[in-house]
Amino acid sequence: MVVVMRTAASDGDIDRVVDAVTNVGGECFVSRGRHQTIIGLVGDLTQFAELPLHAFPNVEDVIRVSRAFKLVSNDAQPRPSTVEVAGRAVGRDTVTLLAGPCAVETPEQTRRACEMAKEAGASILRGGAYKPRTSPYAFQGLGESGLEILQEVSRDLDLPFVTEVVTPADVETVARRADMLQVGTRNMQNFQLLKEVGLAGKPVLLKRGMTATIEEWVMAAEYIAHTGNLDIVLCERGVRTFEPMTRNTLDVSAVPVVQSLTHLPVIIDPSHSGGRRDLVLPLIRSAIAVGADGVIVDVHPDPEHALVDGPQALVREDMPALRDTLTRFTAAVGRTVESDGVATDRAGRSPGWGLGA
Amino acid sequence: MVVVMRTAASDGDIDRVVDAVTNVGGECFVSRGRHQTIIGLVGDLTQFAELPLHAFPNVEDVIRVSRAFKLVSNDAQPRPSTVEVAGRAVGRDTVTLLAGPCAVETPEQTRRACEMAKEAGASILRGGAYKPRTSPYAFQGLGESGLEILQEVSRDLDLPFVTEVVTPADVETVARRADMLQVGTRNMQNFQLLKEVGLAGKPVLLKRGMTATIEEWVMAAEYIAHTGNLDIVLCERGVRTFEPMTRNTLDVSAVPVVQSLTHLPVIIDPSHSGGRRDLVLPLIRSAIAVGADGVIVDVHPDPEHALVDGPQALVREDMPALRDTLTRFTAAVGRTVESDGVATDRAGRSPGWGLGA
Amino acid sequence: MVVVMRTAASDGDIDRVVDAVTNVGGECFVSRGRHQTIIGLVGDLTQFAELPLHAFPNVEDVIRVSRAFKLVSNDAQPRPSTVEVAGRAVGRDTVTLLAGPCAVETPEQTRRACEMAKEAGASILRGGAYKPRTSPYAFQGLGESGLEILQEVSRDLDLPFVTEVVTPADVETVARRADMLQVGTRNMQNFQLLKEVGLAGKPVLLKRGMTATIEEWVMAAEYIAHTGNLDIVLCERGVRTFEPMTRNTLDVSAVPVVQSLTHLPVIIDPSHSGGRRDLVLPLIRSAIAVGADGVIVDVHPDPEHALVDGPQALVREDMPALRDTLTRFTAAVGRTVESDGVATDRAGRSPGWGLGA
Amino acid sequence: MVVVMRTAASDGDIDRVVDAVTNVGGECFVSRGRHQTIIGLVGDLTQFAELPLHAFPNVEDVIRVSRAFKLVSNDAQPRPSTVEVAGRAVGRDTVTLLAGPCAVETPEQTRRACEMAKEAGASILRGGAYKPRTSPYAFQGLGESGLEILQEVSRDLDLPFVTEVVTPADVETVARRADMLQVGTRNMQNFQLLKEVGLAGKPVLLKRGMTATIEEWVMAAEYIAHTGNLDIVLCERGVRTFEPMTRNTLDVSAVPVVQSLTHLPVIIDPSHSGGRRDLVLPLIRSAIAVGADGVIVDVHPDPEHALVDGPQALVREDMPALRDTLTRFTAAVGRTVESDGVATDRAGRSPGWGLGA
Repeated sequence: MVVVMRTAASDGDIDRVVDAVTNVGGECFVSRGRHQTIIGLVGDLTQFAELPLHAFPNVEDVIRVSRAFKLVSNDAQPRPSTVEVAGRAVGRDTVTLLAGPCAVETPEQTRRACEMAKEAGASILRGGAYKPRTSPYAFQGLGESGLEILQEVSRDLDLPFVTEVVTPADVETVARRADMLQVGTRNMQNFQLLKEVGLAGKPVLLKRGMTATIEEWVMAAEYIAHTGNLDIVLCERGVRTFEPMTRNTLDVSAVPVVQSLTHLPVIIDPSHSGGRRDLVLPLIRSAIAVGADGVIVDVHPDPEHALVDGPQALVREDMPALRDTLTRFTAAVGRTVESDGVATDRAGRSPGWGLGA
Repeated sequence: MVVVMRTAASDGDIDRVVDAVTNVGGECFVSRGRHQTIIGLVGDLTQFAELPLHAFPNVEDVIRVSRAFKLVSNDAQPRPSTVEVAGRAVGRDTVTLLAGPCAVETPEQTRRACEMAKEAGASILRGGAYKPRTSPYAFQGLGESGLEILQEVSRDLDLPFVTEVVTPADVETVARRADMLQVGTRNMQNFQLLKEVGLAGKPVLLKRGMTATIEEWVMAAEYIAHTGNLDIVLCERGVRTFEPMTRNTLDVSAVPVVQSLTHLPVIIDPSHSGGRRDLVLPLIRSAIAVGADGVIVDVHPDPEHALVDGPQALVREDMPALRDTLTRFTAAVGRTVESDGVATDRAGRSPGWGLGA
Repeated sequence: MVVVMRTAASDGDIDRVVDAVTNVGGECFVSRGRHQTIIGLVGDLTQFAELPLHAFPNVEDVIRVSRAFKLVSNDAQPRPSTVEVAGRAVGRDTVTLLAGPCAVETPEQTRRACEMAKEAGASILRGGAYKPRTSPYAFQGLGESGLEILQEVSRDLDLPFVTEVVTPADVETVARRADMLQVGTRNMQNFQLLKEVGLAGKPVLLKRGMTATIEEWVMAAEYIAHTGNLDIVLCERGVRTFEPMTRNTLDVSAVPVVQSLTHLPVIIDPSHSGGRRDLVLPLIRSAIAVGADGVIVDVHPDPEHALVDGPQALVREDMPALRDTLTRFTAAVGRTVESDGVATDRAGRSPGWGLGA
Repeated sequence: MVVVMRTAASDGDIDRVVDAVTNVGGECFVSRGRHQTIIGLVGDLTQFAELPLHAFPNVEDVIRVSRAFKLVSNDAQPRPSTVEVAGRAVGRDTVTLLAGPCAVETPEQTRRACEMAKEAGASILRGGAYKPRTSPYAFQGLGESGLEILQEVSRDLDLPFVTEVVTPADVETVARRADMLQVGTRNMQNFQLLKEVGLAGKPVLLKRGMTATIEEWVMAAEYIAHTGNLDIVLCERGVRTFEPMTRNTLDVSAVPVVQSLTHLPVIIDPSHSGGRRDLVLPLIRSAIAVGADGVIVDVHPDPEHALVDGPQALVREDMPALRDTLTRFTAAVGRTVESDGVATDRAGRSPGWGLGA
């Protein structure tokens, strides 16, 4: 940490900072310039982070120069980690497709969407039973009966599923049925939810808040890690900007930045970021190319009758292109498509995929 | 609602939209131009809002032109409403000062901060017992024992208090002791929390999400109203922009915009928006002048030892200026400072305040 | 400036930085921590600012802690400066109203708008003869004949005028007729224009770029100052955010922030920031209250026939409220309304205004 | 265009809008609902765009639903256009690498950087002789002698070059020497510069303003097209957001969005968007994969001594990876790398490149 003193700072003002820091066990290096004095603080950040140095007399600025996260940092674990979701991997060697309907509406719509997903190469299904909606008058999801539908389809297709949990009271119910718990963009700083999801014993998919900085997002992951659960996959899903032609602006740079800071896998949601069906495939290409460890995609068998987020879902006709895109760009980055966990020969390639064929 | 068709749209495409809308009870007016056809939808928005018209063939755009909120709309209740908090008013005739420590740290710090607040003219106290913190390693608040401290100080100073509740499970505990429940910026779209807070039988202070649009914020208020609770005060606290010199950018325009849409009172938080003590008084002046119904301000008896958000708290020496600012600008907008609910002569002025003196 | 080294940095890496800095005449203080080394650089920023220290081996971050501007800094001149525009002042003791039509359309429209402005208390007129328009198909302004209209109206009403110049080649023409030159939001970083405007011998009104940081804005002023011209008035006119209900988001905090950094006067444009007539008066109140040294306002005698920016112009019926607002809030901040430069008794109040009466 | 009337609008108010529109040759379709009336305007947008309908009595909103640009629209020319720069193509069949030093500093640094660029597969060189710098104290570029250096290196390496022009007065000088003129991010709405650059008879590289909407950017291209010059290449270079870990946020979605609106080629600048050398290659992969028609990259032989933007330049060791990335991802999108215009067999592949080898 660096404390910048105002030009007017006296020796007493400087001593006051130094004393406060050394009192909590830190060390100070004072750089006295003609105009300005800078104090470098070395030691453990968590010691000083709570000191209100900003409020000290003649302190102009306090600049943090080290990381506030520990457990998810690649200082703590330099090798990228792979998260296993009921036998399927999300990690640095593979590209994993997660796909399914945005919302579970009916058993049939869910089954058909998930079959489309599997056909396109998905190894994890997705679907929303509890939907956070901007309007109280909008469809709020089927709740537990939605989970039952997902569970049945998941069993029949032999693929695990991830689903969103929106409030701490539902964590246990969701964790009993789902293979992975999703924390949505609006709940990224719902700290109680983060803690309870962390304790549920299942891997967690943590979406970036639509206006969270990367550091805040990684700190939210640290909340989960702090409960002892390191099976966390980060998901970039677009940030809010001034541009009205897309719902959000997909921040692809976040992928390499996150990978330079943490050991956690990171995937991209091309459906909610663009909010437009015609952007989904280009953004998937972009995501895989930039180095994402997977993509999570909305598909719908009949988007004209969707209850939620119809405009962005891929439809049946898109499935061959989705499969082809996944195959082609995964090969271009030198990875393999995560497929059936057991049957895949990781050293080589999934027999079912015929990469490069 | 307006549906804009692509140039390529056929009569069949247009009919498809018209049929879908009339099926759910809406009415359509088709404007056929040489290049482009526009379909105007009239009727109740909640009927069409769920139709995935974006996904219909050759639909270029779907534009909502009416409001999605009802209960908090000034269509529903044209007269501005006044929210009473244990006898103190927040409404269009008065300017109400809410003040106290950012976080409850100790009984003494809380008492001293609240005494400062009262001295400066506060009629509602504030203080945080449950703190949503970006880092799991940061001080998380005293919890229920913090509530007890607040309750005792509140009783002694004969002023009600507002405090934040961060998760549904705490609502009952907080509502038992506090006079008003605060939903913080990170929880503005924690819909389950909104519902439970709405049902708690206490007035609610709803902060704007730091990157929420005004419409999303008003829709969050609609969630609370939907539970039958209309005692809602909105609070603008700065939005996130690219500017690094202030913590957030206070959006003063939000006050008249909100007042043109809803009947709810709206106040401003000058402490968290700027994040700098030197900006608090200018922003209070600005807030009152633009028409805010109150301001909520952090004060601290000893900010050098604050555990949370020290740099922005007003200190003892600032209290006379705070009191003077409140008095002077409240008079300039032709209102009275909300003071002791009983003793104030609303037609004239609070005897204790000597406005204009 | 502070250079933060990576954990992996060797002594050689540290020496490399120290050598580069001392070579250009700076001084370094090295703070070696267990995990991280921080190097504090003291001396004249302009010496190091050009060093590409970011590109040095094992440098993690380079943080600037001192100001890059000099001539406009309040380090250079601690007393706030007052800019005189043909006898009218813009400065810390007064509040100055600049008003007139957004665009000069006809002699009559200009005259009527300027008469309205004078009636409301304006002491400087405004009007656009060269309009920067997003579309090449939109009305681009009357050019030099617009300047002639402005000059005639200005002479008849005995009030100076400010007008925008959009390209270096027009500076001489505009400076020959106008009393103050405006650099618009889209040209804030048109550095050649800044230089030529600076050399034109007239005071300059420098609008903030709609997405410029405060530091970039002040640096743009430094470009003008660098030509020897310190008669610069800054103008905050709203920044671009995600909020669609207002054209831009007025950043009132920018006023006290700028005043804490520079000695230049700063005014606010409530017309272009909100883009809505109903927001203009609330934003003027807010601007004066926060401490702005003036406001610049669009007025139009007949906005239904305006060629540019109709929706935000104040109309004839608004003039008494504008005059009253100006008077009342100027008094509340303890200033006087800038009026006729000669007749005003600065110590007391303008005879024509009857402040506080 | 759609005009939304307030609930309170009378028949007279509606007629007023209809009359104004029909007076300028448009047609109106009125959709009268129980609560709200919507008026659809059909005809040529440029007719109504200048009507100040917002200022009409009881008009709530005016929504534009058609495009304001014509010449660059893919309505006007559905086939993607290819821009030729002295024999090298930028278009939909190829991926073109433009590379060179950010700024021309010395003849030797320029030559070495351009040789590196050629070696990596660049078919167009880049280099700045006129640098728009935030600070007046920063290196402003070598000006015309920088152009001479570029011209000589360009001749020797037999590759054309693009360079930025920052003010109208320099257009002629730059156009005499350069093969393509660049309009930088800060000048995207410098309309006089757009016009003069359009008239210079050379292809133009138009960077997106760092906070311009896509529509504003395309309208800026329309300014150039309006002069009769359709040889325009758009360049996305990152937009300004709240995220501090990257200089800007690269908006990859802008590529397919622009391609859905216009026939112009669009490329990406991975150097200035991220501002970090370690992000350049991932962002190039992402750019090519999303469908960009090229990338423009900073390279420097000795970034520790760079005068401008050192931290983001690729260095000599990066060249093989740059070449490999370009080859591999161009193949993945089914295009060919633009190479030597003459020698390339477009149907197949460039002999020098050995795609897929």
